[in-house]
Amino acid sequence: MKAQVHVKLKSGVLDPQGLAISKSLQSLGYDGIVSVRQGKVFDIEINGVDEKAAESMLKEVSSKLLANTVIEDFEVRVL
Amino acid sequence: MKAQVHVKLKSGVLDPQGLAISKSLQSLGYDGIVSVRQGKVFDIEINGVDEKAAESMLKEVSSKLLANTVIEDFEVRVL
Repeated sequence: MKAQVHVKLKSGVLDPQGLAISKSLQSLGYDGIVSVRQGKVFDIEINGVDEKAAESMLKEVSSKLLANTVIEDFEVRVL
Repeated sequence: MKAQVHVKLKSGVLDPQGLAISKSLQSLGYDGIVSVRQGKVFDIEINGVDEKAAESMLKEVSSKLLANTVIEDFEVRVL
């Protein structure tokens, strides 16, 4: 089974990397770019569990290991 | 308009970070985890262009700046 976990900075948290990218793009002439925020995506392959178990396992894993829940939100998608 | 760009290592390229995560998870007792590959996701806000123009601009931007197309693939989604 394949799953994806998205980890993003919470909306109030400053994202210097995203800010740098959006400024670079604007200075390169891409004026349409208003903002960029960078996050992480984990493509995970899972074996031997059903969809529900996979989802709850990935939520546990994400909050323990993949995301820093003080400043980041995560989203689990079983594909 | 909101868009998302996913940047992932090409399938043949070694992903040491993903490997480290999957080994950590397995050693923590999450045996169901077969593999983890880590990528980047960019949440981009765009103004003043239509959907088609936004998509072609983001493809250009991704191949020029966001992704290293020698080792990475990217995917643009206008939301």
